[in-house]
Amino acid sequence: MKVGRFTLEDATLERSPDQNDEIYAGDLVNAAQGASVTVGYGRYGPGARLEETLAVHDVMIVLEGGLTVTSGDRSLSAGPGEIVYMPEGERVVIQAGEQGALTAYVTHPHWREARG
Amino acid sequence: MKVGRFTLEDATLERSPDQNDEIYAGDLVNAAQGASVTVGYGRYGPGARLEETLAVHDVMIVLEGGLTVTSGDRSLSAGPGEIVYMPEGERVVIQAGEQGALTAYVTHPHWREARG
Repeated sequence: MKVGRFTLEDATLERSPDQNDEIYAGDLVNAAQGASVTVGYGRYGPGARLEETLAVHDVMIVLEGGLTVTSGDRSLSAGPGEIVYMPEGERVVIQAGEQGALTAYVTHPHWREARG
Repeated sequence: MKVGRFTLEDATLERSPDQNDEIYAGDLVNAAQGASVTVGYGRYGPGARLEETLAVHDVMIVLEGGLTVTSGDRSLSAGPGEIVYMPEGERVVIQAGEQGALTAYVTHPHWREARG
């Protein structure tokens, strides 16, 4: 794959596996392009909540709205322009704020493969 | 390392190695934390220009301003909320627009180590 430029319109947002809340992910670059990381956009509806043990290292950059990530007894809130780094193996709860959230994500290795 | 939340204020922006233009990078997460990716903020002054062959896979998320990436005979412009993916080995010219640019970056593997 060559250099690529992506906008939200390039992503096909699909409901995140195993989630009931309004949480969508759309990969732009992943193993299919021979990349070593997966890159995409994520969208969380207002108050949407996701609890999971991370199968991969996951970086989220908040573009719009906001969310709170809780891990153990620590809760970290992030808004536009802020970055959340979540290492593989951590148990996290991601909760979107009242406005929901739009994120860009980068995972290593590929989250879809790690989920099996 | 545990889950981390970062803002621009957390980054110590340093002039990018081998660059004369106003281009600064500040790692937030890298090999020092045992991460598999490097995460940070980048700042480009107005019109700043960087030409390099990528030693790592590099994802840039534009947060403010804009920039154009030229690779071969293709030029791709990105503004706030847009993502540029640049694979290892590509020769690129990154040129900031009149307002400069603020980016979040994720590289795999670690760009500082790859530069030696």
